[in-house]
Amino acid sequence: MADRPAWCFDIDGVLLDISGVLYDSGGEGDGTPIQGSIDAVKRLKASPLKVRFCTNETQCTRQYLVDKLVRLGFPISLDEVFSPAPAACQVIKRKSLHPYLLVHPDAVPDFSEFDLTLPPDCVIIGDAADAFTYDNMNKAFQVLISQENPVLISMGKGRYYKEKDGLMMDVGGFMTALEFAAGCKAEVVGKPDQGFFLGALQDMQVPVEKAVMIGDDILNDIGGAQRSGIKGVQVRTGKFRPEDESQSVVTPDGFVDNLAQAVDLILGN
Amino acid sequence: MADRPAWCFDIDGVLLDISGVLYDSGGEGDGTPIQGSIDAVKRLKASPLKVRFCTNETQCTRQYLVDKLVRLGFPISLDEVFSPAPAACQVIKRKSLHPYLLVHPDAVPDFSEFDLTLPPDCVIIGDAADAFTYDNMNKAFQVLISQENPVLISMGKGRYYKEKDGLMMDVGGFMTALEFAAGCKAEVVGKPDQGFFLGALQDMQVPVEKAVMIGDDILNDIGGAQRSGIKGVQVRTGKFRPEDESQSVVTPDGFVDNLAQAVDLILGN
Repeated sequence: MADRPAWCFDIDGVLLDISGVLYDSGGEGDGTPIQGSIDAVKRLKASPLKVRFCTNETQCTRQYLVDKLVRLGFPISLDEVFSPAPAACQVIKRKSLHPYLLVHPDAVPDFSEFDLTLPPDCVIIGDAADAFTYDNMNKAFQVLISQENPVLISMGKGRYYKEKDGLMMDVGGFMTALEFAAGCKAEVVGKPDQGFFLGALQDMQVPVEKAVMIGDDILNDIGGAQRSGIKGVQVRTGKFRPEDESQSVVTPDGFVDNLAQAVDLILGN
Repeated sequence: MADRPAWCFDIDGVLLDISGVLYDSGGEGDGTPIQGSIDAVKRLKASPLKVRFCTNETQCTRQYLVDKLVRLGFPISLDEVFSPAPAACQVIKRKSLHPYLLVHPDAVPDFSEFDLTLPPDCVIIGDAADAFTYDNMNKAFQVLISQENPVLISMGKGRYYKEKDGLMMDVGGFMTALEFAAGCKAEVVGKPDQGFFLGALQDMQVPVEKAVMIGDDILNDIGGAQRSGIKGVQVRTGKFRPEDESQSVVTPDGFVDNLAQAVDLILGN
């Protein structure tokens, strides 16, 4: 094994992105685990380190995601997974608003606490995929443009993600479309929001300087973690593209070929 | 009649927006002429003034639009109408590229000079309306992200337009969505591009200081004309909203209730 780089020393807690780090989604069935990742998660959880999973996944409920990962062989429980839906619900409740949901149909149960029959006065947008129709975009736009101070809550702001068929547009583009049309600024929950990373660290009682985030999204995983004071390590799996290594505005604390290599380095095997 | 304001003196040429100035589109049939607009166009064309129509309409071919306006009673011919599709075709030909068309199905015949069976290496986006599906957006995104220097030609960049059922998202939002996801900058043809306004003035042989643009879009009609050195007058019809009068970054040379009032002022009736 190569010399251990600086970033992997003195780590007490590890934050893991899910899609593109643990597995590749898309195609038929549950997707495909990335080589060595199941074993890497098992080794991390058998070590004294704390582990949490920070995902911007909003194409399904948190429970569905956990069940899928367990089926694939990952040892994961619901309370270890941080995703944007609970944060979006908190914001809406605090403001006493009624949301229009521009989200994936499979994610709707995560918002069951709201009465969706009331006239909406704000919009929650997620990775709606095929539900990003013109009609649905326009309904969200009409809610926003009718408000004096439009409230648009965006669950993440990713540019794209990788599926078997190639790169796919993520929620970020559709968020900017609504911002432009309605003349408003979205409030982003989930990565790269600092509160999201710090909430996960607080949950595992690890200070920022002893934590590392491992992800495939240079802006939202690595950039977001670093702005929160957490080290960010980029995997060369998932949506990683060679340009990320040379042309990005974000400089990761380290690069690894995959999660397995990152865990080797952290555990000093 | 009130005193004539400064903007309406010494005018030799008039540029007119179509949707929201001549008629309101949407609903069943051809739409509804705006009160007094048919007569106003007739009076302008009977005067010594030159008239051209500058539209960002891309939901149909230019010929279809002209036929519809003639059916509604407007005296308009094809060579008086400037729309973004010919400008988009020129850019693509100059660059020797093969476009992917993210446009309204009814507008496709305006691009018949291109062989659409070839693998696309650039994207033309227009007001595709219901054709703004996730699948079509993603196809455009995948063309752009596969190119080292992505070329995205946007036919206009309007925020929204008005139909009978209310305000509808225009091409601008979907343009910004692709810009964000693919990390590129669109080249806009049509309003508010200066070349578009100046082309229409050149066609009628009128200098910028003797021209006025009359439109309902404060940014693309009024702002675009003014940046080209042309006076811009805002009508209170179409997509006009009271906020445009007090909160916009653009200050029109004048406001009028509708086209009929603008023509009264210009002709000094």
